[in-house]
Amino acid sequence: MKGELTVTDSERARILVEALPYFRKYHGRTVVVKYGGAAMTEPGLRDQVMQDIVLMQTVGLSPILVHGGGPEVSEAMKKVGKEPVFVRGLRVTDEETVRIAEMVLAGPTNKGIVTLIHRHGGRAVGLSGKDGNLLVARRMEVDGADLGFVGDVDEINPHIIETLVGGGYVPVICSIAVGRGGETYNVNADHVAGFLAAELKAEKLLLLTDVRGILRDVKDPNSLISELTAAEARALIANGSVDRGMIPKVESCLKAIEGGVPRAHILDGRAPHSILTELFTDHGIGTMVIP
Amino acid sequence: MKGELTVTDSERARILVEALPYFRKYHGRTVVVKYGGAAMTEPGLRDQVMQDIVLMQTVGLSPILVHGGGPEVSEAMKKVGKEPVFVRGLRVTDEETVRIAEMVLAGPTNKGIVTLIHRHGGRAVGLSGKDGNLLVARRMEVDGADLGFVGDVDEINPHIIETLVGGGYVPVICSIAVGRGGETYNVNADHVAGFLAAELKAEKLLLLTDVRGILRDVKDPNSLISELTAAEARALIANGSVDRGMIPKVESCLKAIEGGVPRAHILDGRAPHSILTELFTDHGIGTMVIP
Amino acid sequence: MKGELTVTDSERARILVEALPYFRKYHGRTVVVKYGGAAMTEPGLRDQVMQDIVLMQTVGLSPILVHGGGPEVSEAMKKVGKEPVFVRGLRVTDEETVRIAEMVLAGPTNKGIVTLIHRHGGRAVGLSGKDGNLLVARRMEVDGADLGFVGDVDEINPHIIETLVGGGYVPVICSIAVGRGGETYNVNADHVAGFLAAELKAEKLLLLTDVRGILRDVKDPNSLISELTAAEARALIANGSVDRGMIPKVESCLKAIEGGVPRAHILDGRAPHSILTELFTDHGIGTMVIP
Amino acid sequence: MKGELTVTDSERARILVEALPYFRKYHGRTVVVKYGGAAMTEPGLRDQVMQDIVLMQTVGLSPILVHGGGPEVSEAMKKVGKEPVFVRGLRVTDEETVRIAEMVLAGPTNKGIVTLIHRHGGRAVGLSGKDGNLLVARRMEVDGADLGFVGDVDEINPHIIETLVGGGYVPVICSIAVGRGGETYNVNADHVAGFLAAELKAEKLLLLTDVRGILRDVKDPNSLISELTAAEARALIANGSVDRGMIPKVESCLKAIEGGVPRAHILDGRAPHSILTELFTDHGIGTMVIP
Amino acid sequence: MKGELTVTDSERARILVEALPYFRKYHGRTVVVKYGGAAMTEPGLRDQVMQDIVLMQTVGLSPILVHGGGPEVSEAMKKVGKEPVFVRGLRVTDEETVRIAEMVLAGPTNKGIVTLIHRHGGRAVGLSGKDGNLLVARRMEVDGADLGFVGDVDEINPHIIETLVGGGYVPVICSIAVGRGGETYNVNADHVAGFLAAELKAEKLLLLTDVRGILRDVKDPNSLISELTAAEARALIANGSVDRGMIPKVESCLKAIEGGVPRAHILDGRAPHSILTELFTDHGIGTMVIP
Amino acid sequence: MKGELTVTDSERARILVEALPYFRKYHGRTVVVKYGGAAMTEPGLRDQVMQDIVLMQTVGLSPILVHGGGPEVSEAMKKVGKEPVFVRGLRVTDEETVRIAEMVLAGPTNKGIVTLIHRHGGRAVGLSGKDGNLLVARRMEVDGADLGFVGDVDEINPHIIETLVGGGYVPVICSIAVGRGGETYNVNADHVAGFLAAELKAEKLLLLTDVRGILRDVKDPNSLISELTAAEARALIANGSVDRGMIPKVESCLKAIEGGVPRAHILDGRAPHSILTELFTDHGIGTMVIP
Repeated sequence: MKGELTVTDSERARILVEALPYFRKYHGRTVVVKYGGAAMTEPGLRDQVMQDIVLMQTVGLSPILVHGGGPEVSEAMKKVGKEPVFVRGLRVTDEETVRIAEMVLAGPTNKGIVTLIHRHGGRAVGLSGKDGNLLVARRMEVDGADLGFVGDVDEINPHIIETLVGGGYVPVICSIAVGRGGETYNVNADHVAGFLAAELKAEKLLLLTDVRGILRDVKDPNSLISELTAAEARALIANGSVDRGMIPKVESCLKAIEGGVPRAHILDGRAPHSILTELFTDHGIGTMVIP
Repeated sequence: MKGELTVTDSERARILVEALPYFRKYHGRTVVVKYGGAAMTEPGLRDQVMQDIVLMQTVGLSPILVHGGGPEVSEAMKKVGKEPVFVRGLRVTDEETVRIAEMVLAGPTNKGIVTLIHRHGGRAVGLSGKDGNLLVARRMEVDGADLGFVGDVDEINPHIIETLVGGGYVPVICSIAVGRGGETYNVNADHVAGFLAAELKAEKLLLLTDVRGILRDVKDPNSLISELTAAEARALIANGSVDRGMIPKVESCLKAIEGGVPRAHILDGRAPHSILTELFTDHGIGTMVIP
Repeated sequence: MKGELTVTDSERARILVEALPYFRKYHGRTVVVKYGGAAMTEPGLRDQVMQDIVLMQTVGLSPILVHGGGPEVSEAMKKVGKEPVFVRGLRVTDEETVRIAEMVLAGPTNKGIVTLIHRHGGRAVGLSGKDGNLLVARRMEVDGADLGFVGDVDEINPHIIETLVGGGYVPVICSIAVGRGGETYNVNADHVAGFLAAELKAEKLLLLTDVRGILRDVKDPNSLISELTAAEARALIANGSVDRGMIPKVESCLKAIEGGVPRAHILDGRAPHSILTELFTDHGIGTMVIP
Repeated sequence: MKGELTVTDSERARILVEALPYFRKYHGRTVVVKYGGAAMTEPGLRDQVMQDIVLMQTVGLSPILVHGGGPEVSEAMKKVGKEPVFVRGLRVTDEETVRIAEMVLAGPTNKGIVTLIHRHGGRAVGLSGKDGNLLVARRMEVDGADLGFVGDVDEINPHIIETLVGGGYVPVICSIAVGRGGETYNVNADHVAGFLAAELKAEKLLLLTDVRGILRDVKDPNSLISELTAAEARALIANGSVDRGMIPKVESCLKAIEGGVPRAHILDGRAPHSILTELFTDHGIGTMVIP
Repeated sequence: MKGELTVTDSERARILVEALPYFRKYHGRTVVVKYGGAAMTEPGLRDQVMQDIVLMQTVGLSPILVHGGGPEVSEAMKKVGKEPVFVRGLRVTDEETVRIAEMVLAGPTNKGIVTLIHRHGGRAVGLSGKDGNLLVARRMEVDGADLGFVGDVDEINPHIIETLVGGGYVPVICSIAVGRGGETYNVNADHVAGFLAAELKAEKLLLLTDVRGILRDVKDPNSLISELTAAEARALIANGSVDRGMIPKVESCLKAIEGGVPRAHILDGRAPHSILTELFTDHGIGTMVIP
Repeated sequence: MKGELTVTDSERARILVEALPYFRKYHGRTVVVKYGGAAMTEPGLRDQVMQDIVLMQTVGLSPILVHGGGPEVSEAMKKVGKEPVFVRGLRVTDEETVRIAEMVLAGPTNKGIVTLIHRHGGRAVGLSGKDGNLLVARRMEVDGADLGFVGDVDEINPHIIETLVGGGYVPVICSIAVGRGGETYNVNADHVAGFLAAELKAEKLLLLTDVRGILRDVKDPNSLISELTAAEARALIANGSVDRGMIPKVESCLKAIEGGVPRAHILDGRAPHSILTELFTDHGIGTMVIP
């Protein structure tokens, strides 16, 4: 609070009171947050996201965190002398690679997030898709290419999520799934988040990205679309106006919307406290997808 | 929010986050608020107090409101041609007067507060001390003077409070008690608040007044005492340094502290959002009595 | 029991046993009682009603009391020099009048009933329609006449009733409702009782009146109708054979019956223990309305 | 009700109301009833006891019935040509005799009581001491005499009682116990009742007998003792003033009192509705033993 | 375990592990066992059945035992000089006979089973159809013949079963039912078992018999039918290929299957641990009836 | 079951029945299993342990698994070119090493165990000490040597264990703890198991090792001590007769015993189904430490 003397106590109180209608609106609701990008790598932003998560939990929401960790996996591969190979934006994933992915994602990445939530006063438990058989996947079919242990989630068993939320914990889920034969799959975290939001009948899906949202014209940063319907989103993908990196995020939103989630948001995770701003002020930020 | 453009969304979020440790600290705790003075008569302050109460409830505290309403009672007496008489600061209360007091306090005053809480999105139920036999009183003994139906609470049955809190309601309690023969007593709301805080093992007692707190020198408004122990408070009363009007408030704090409440506060109800400021910022305001 | 030596212990026991099938029949059921008339003003009858209510609660029923208090309101108005004015049997209710009505009904009238129930060993809590937003009304539409704050209840939020019954309390409800803007309305207690009985899926509605029931010929006190269907009741009103004062009572019964209550009774509250007699003996008394 | 026109409805209601304080007093309490004598063999009395039991259950008490059935056992023995032999008032019980006792007591006697309770609108389940290992006995030691399978209960496992009471059933228990080797014992029903009352922390023990109570002078039927302390009762036994048949009943009362039961009663089961009269009127009848 | 040195510890563990999938499959399911024949009269087999029942309960199943006891009833009749008479395989049952049947079945037979279950470490409660009004019957209609108190169950009130299972007890039910007028009926235990299995939505019905199962050719002991559909079973009865003694057992299976029980088994109760073998190994034994 | 024709169905049933008393004895009890050694690296043994765990869960015990994974960590270090260094048997653990340890243990090792339990029909969730703040450690003090991120657990927060067990999951816990500043510590899995067993008031602690138990003479494999008291165990350590590798296991047993666990066992994990053999047969194996 040091050095920010301009905000008086009464302004402070007023701001809390202005958040009140939003606290009430989301009370008892589930919000799935896909965590990634700068918000995950930048220490300052990282702390802010965790504060946002703990605040959500404190005022009565049930936040669920989903994360991947592509850069950390690539870095770990390089340490053992493996060069990451991508085909159509998907990592070719042999047995050693998927083992490294599991080590990184279910290990330091997942547990680091859990620890940060505790440091900010919350309670969390980290999960991979193997825990409680949460995420069951089959090998992704990509015509022509053999990508190895890249999977598509096709079954979700949410009982462990409900057990943890009931026990007062924020579930933190990494994008590792289990195959029907017990094998390990690397899956897309955006997809997992959308699928989970649908399965849990979440009130909202929030995807933290490193862009401002969906642009009408990819080259024009001022062409942000603040709201679009699922149909419009599908059309944008179909006519090629969505940036490749953005496609899984838009698909994630669509999966959520189709599953009954009323609103899915693509947020700029580089902005401070973007989650709180979206949830608890009347400023819509980023792009909101609606049914 | 109009016209207050100086607070950006991110400052707003930061302010919420700064309140987080306080939200967590008081989560699930009971806070008894003695409501009165300007905060009860000034419409703007009234709305602020109710917002504060609803915010408390939303972020997981259990607020309990206690109120009297001397001026309203006097006014109603005058309407029927009765002149209020006071002996040593206590209203002489014949049968008609206590009936008027009950009409006013359990009627429009109590139900008006309940309605305001609903308007701000909360849920409340108004009670007199007769409901569920909550406050049982006997005739106050004042040497020499017969004050009539002025009572001292000597039994509290808090089960109805627990029932309402368990059902999600803010109990709003007026300072009318029941005698063992079923008769009606006017009781001091400050005393009720202190007694209730002790009985309910509250985390805090907050008394809203029209002064800044306890002054070391009654004539010097800059001599505010921000913290004093129960022993010190007792000494101040004993040596006559406490203003007559302040005495029941200090006694209320002492009753709470003796009953195990860790902190009791005399707050300036004329300041905006004084409850939130006390609870959810690191600014102590007014006078805090500690064991 | 003094002076009533004619009833031996074994007759006494036999009478309890004869009540047994009725105790069993109503076990766990809700019975809404509209309280008023002589049963409310006559001390002896008043005590009997309260004994009946406490007995109901003790043997496992859930009694709900609804009351108005027209005479008390008129008397209080006169004290402040206001003359009651009625148009078509409805009190013209300006702002001061509705404030007086709230003072009287939610104050001494309501709390007096609560206290009597406690005195007879029961537990009760008094409510106005503002508590827990129980009774929400809009301004009654009467062609031509402006009656002021006379309302029609059009929304009931029974959660507070369930909370109190679950906590072991008899809810005692006065006929004051809240408008959508927070304003106060005087509403008809008979209507409230019928509406509540329907909303709570009560087993019975009992209306205590000062007549023996509905008469086939208003001038012939021996023409009591002991049972009639809702259709017959509607016909009686339509062809003008129902006394004006009786109309809201019959409407109350109809509202209950239409809402699924199997039986609604108009009882003579001047008879001793008319509630127990109706419920726990095989004597039907008064007029019973059935679907 | 036929032919008893002298009791008006209002007298009827008054009598119910006079029972109210007793209903409230015993609400939720356990009452152990030792059933036997004329109340068990006389059809009219039998029905009355069962009505009393069902009424107790209906108004919220937990009645527990214990019964023996000596005459029925003797009769069944005679049918197979066995002559009952008694030593010091105790039946000599060989293996065939204990088998006959179990057949009679756990069979038609026990199930007949259960059926009667159902017929009067209650719900009951019959138990022997073998069910749920309720009554564990060892061979009674009688100096000199070998009485065979006559046992002393020395362990009670009340869990099955709690399960049945929790399920809404009246447990009906016959005086057959199980030995540690699985053998069958005939035990004294009076003793079982006293032991059970102590174990269940009952509010009362009621023993139905064929006498008016304990007499100060066995030969003078007018010398009924209405109240005596446990010490006095012990003294009466010691100095031989208690009739042999009455001894186990007094011992049963003592066992209950020593186990914390506040009051144990020896009632005249030949009087109509003696249980209700004792419980729900202010007439004490029979002999009451207090600590 | 002495003298069986051939089974090593690790074989022992392996065998437990092989039972694991069956434990899991039946976890939380209800299995109705009709107990009778050699398994009831042979001490060695009797112990084995009880061990099987206790094991079922321990690994999380809910076993329900139903038994009759024809031979014991006949023997008791002879003791009092009554000669059993059968018409079309049904015992002619006058009032004395049904009383004897109740004595035997609800007495030593039922309580003996309960005691054995306790001896093997389980917990059980014996019931007749009168307890909790479990089995309500009407007089069986047999053209021409008056069989007396032989009944057909036509109403089951399973609440007492649920209460006991919820309390951790194995219900042991004898084939005595109650008539609507409170009279006692002897009913067929096979039928009761099938009816109960249907009512309780059991996972399985197991009928212990003294044969290997249903034979295709009654004279050829090698013609065991291991599986047949309900339709086939009905056809077998229709064309007279089912042995008279077997008919009620097949009818019992049909009643269960029609009520939604997936599998009903006629087992050879003379084989050791036939229940465990059927449930917890992959050996089907006896005859299984399926929908 | 192929090729093991010597075990008949009835022997199979008998073996189940012989396990019954053990099933009952441990029903509802917590058993902490330290998993490691050959039982963790040998696929055949691994499957057997998991079957044992799932069987425990199925018959009503609450197994808790704790594991380390030293060899896997060393192997992963070598892959990135780091040579493991040990001081007094403890791994020198710099920041990169502890990160690798977390990757391996919380990643594939932990999740592999979880997956195996699911494959055998159970349900499990993997945890590190960071999840729910389960294991809080401080830097181990070793005189002279700086071992880096090697920690001693000094606080256990078992709420997450209770949440998972309540939800029907087997908790699988790796030996990674969190420091008070959020840093990662490698901790000794034997110690964690002993500490947890004490904290959870476990019925038993089972340590799977690659030896037969504690030997009286380290060089004589036939000198197995089957039972010793805590005092004796302490003496053995003090006089140097315990092998260095065995010391943490004995300390783990002592920690459990001191915390109230009645029995702690050092088992030979190389034997098939050693857990089941210990729990469910009357063969004690390995070394049992008692208070």
